[in-house]
Amino acid sequence: MSEPARLPAAARAILRGDRRALARAITAVENGDPAADAILGAIYPRTRGVPIVGLAGPLGVGKSSLINALISLLRASGRTVAVVAVDPSSPFSGGSVLGDRIRFEGRATDTGVFFRSMASRGAVGGVAAATLEAARLLDAAGFDIVLVETVGSGQVDVAIREIATTRVVVLVPHLGDEVQTLKAGLFEIADVFCVNKTDLPGADIAQRNLRDLVVQGRKTEEWATRIVGTSTTQPNGIDALWEAIEAHERYLDASGERARNERQRLSTEIVGLVRDRVGRELAHELEHDPELRGLLDQVIARSLDPRAAARRLRLAVRRTE
Amino acid sequence: MSEPARLPAAARAILRGDRRALARAITAVENGDPAADAILGAIYPRTRGVPIVGLAGPLGVGKSSLINALISLLRASGRTVAVVAVDPSSPFSGGSVLGDRIRFEGRATDTGVFFRSMASRGAVGGVAAATLEAARLLDAAGFDIVLVETVGSGQVDVAIREIATTRVVVLVPHLGDEVQTLKAGLFEIADVFCVNKTDLPGADIAQRNLRDLVVQGRKTEEWATRIVGTSTTQPNGIDALWEAIEAHERYLDASGERARNERQRLSTEIVGLVRDRVGRELAHELEHDPELRGLLDQVIARSLDPRAAARRLRLAVRRTE
Repeated sequence: MSEPARLPAAARAILRGDRRALARAITAVENGDPAADAILGAIYPRTRGVPIVGLAGPLGVGKSSLINALISLLRASGRTVAVVAVDPSSPFSGGSVLGDRIRFEGRATDTGVFFRSMASRGAVGGVAAATLEAARLLDAAGFDIVLVETVGSGQVDVAIREIATTRVVVLVPHLGDEVQTLKAGLFEIADVFCVNKTDLPGADIAQRNLRDLVVQGRKTEEWATRIVGTSTTQPNGIDALWEAIEAHERYLDASGERARNERQRLSTEIVGLVRDRVGRELAHELEHDPELRGLLDQVIARSLDPRAAARRLRLAVRRTE
Repeated sequence: MSEPARLPAAARAILRGDRRALARAITAVENGDPAADAILGAIYPRTRGVPIVGLAGPLGVGKSSLINALISLLRASGRTVAVVAVDPSSPFSGGSVLGDRIRFEGRATDTGVFFRSMASRGAVGGVAAATLEAARLLDAAGFDIVLVETVGSGQVDVAIREIATTRVVVLVPHLGDEVQTLKAGLFEIADVFCVNKTDLPGADIAQRNLRDLVVQGRKTEEWATRIVGTSTTQPNGIDALWEAIEAHERYLDASGERARNERQRLSTEIVGLVRDRVGRELAHELEHDPELRGLLDQVIARSLDPRAAARRLRLAVRRTE
């Protein structure tokens, strides 16, 4: 571990809670700016492994309101909270719908809360890795809990699976078709199910149906997915939701699953970093190296198939001991 | 190009239109079965580059009904159609909701139509690559047009961007929030916008709003995104939709964009294949090679950060000339 005096200035600023330095470092991570290397390296030994609570679920189930309610609960008990909104809306132009939406709810003056949206840069692996690094920066900056919200469904929620320590899947009564299509994937990522908008008719039935399905989908002997009903219009069940999340965090420690998950997560992350770098290098060479361009020309001419071309290219990227 | 007699039996069967051999080959692709290598290699020189028409858009906009209507139109003019439904619902258990839904509409006896769902295996890159290979098999089997449908929104639709020659984004009037969140990404992938369910109130306004937005989002000088209104309850506008798709296909040839896109697509595909293989090899070594396991142990102990570990691992995967 380095001496504090030898840390990069940006890392020192983050460790003492400088919000602008923190925001800049997250932007560097998001943009693939190599300046992030030194900062992440310097803060990593200071990370504590705070809970990363992921909230996934379809649009319109009220995840943002739920997050606001959770923030109120946590702030009332003196805990600090960072929210990272993973926004897949535009993998191309880099949208930031969510973060803005949350940010405008008047918490700008509370230094115990930090909002940030992470735009997807076109690769799920990419945004998941960037969000995990952002969570580390937030951890090092002293936040007690990191909440990660995703919009939409399907692949993007994989980001939640990869980085969250506790995964909350939020639904509303009567989602109908949406639930039918999503349920298989959702069951497998949910540690806690939150049936939000329990003031709507049908919430009891929705919870009962979920309970039946959870029995089928239960993941381990030790942890059965919890189901909590919430409402944010007349706040209700928010404390029960947080209690379910904390129960899961305690379970992770008691069962040894936290350590196993962390090992798996780090292995995946490191491999992903190397794989992406190799991919970027190859893409460049395939465009600029005359020999490799010739390979591509053969594929275009249909005289070599893409898999055969990949095998030849693989031989050129051989591991040397 | 090999002699027909030297082709693998499975490839010969596919080339003469054997549907079971075709289905088995697609399954091999989907499962990462190495048996697919020889088949794909053998059929690749026989592919003609048929149109791959992607249909993306949120749940509930009627993509499946639209596909059925397109199939009726195309069959009436004697063309054969294959439909690949990319189903992201469960990246974990491998759902196949869509394909089944379409398949049950009574076309089982028409040999000019082929349905197939591709389950996501957890990686967007993976399912896009597999879908592209499936489209090649369908092309080699003689289908005139391949329709690719995705469910949901966001990242998964990137698959459409990567593999379709013409991208159709399907919306309905009054999507509200959903459109707000999705629009940035959708604009950038759409060659044709389809406003479906024009029998619903508000369709005129939806088309007008889209037209305004398309002007902002227009991609090239030569091709302005087309907007078509359709209804499938009292079939309406289906011919106009197909005409817009064909106009885009003609544009691809006339402008030279087809060749540029194909080069880019093949380069991305080949690099992706190599990158994924390198990733799988590294993941295995990180678990089994004592030296690399030690690297992971240091990261877990916080004495080495993940990026630094990735740099060390990268040195071990050096390119040799």
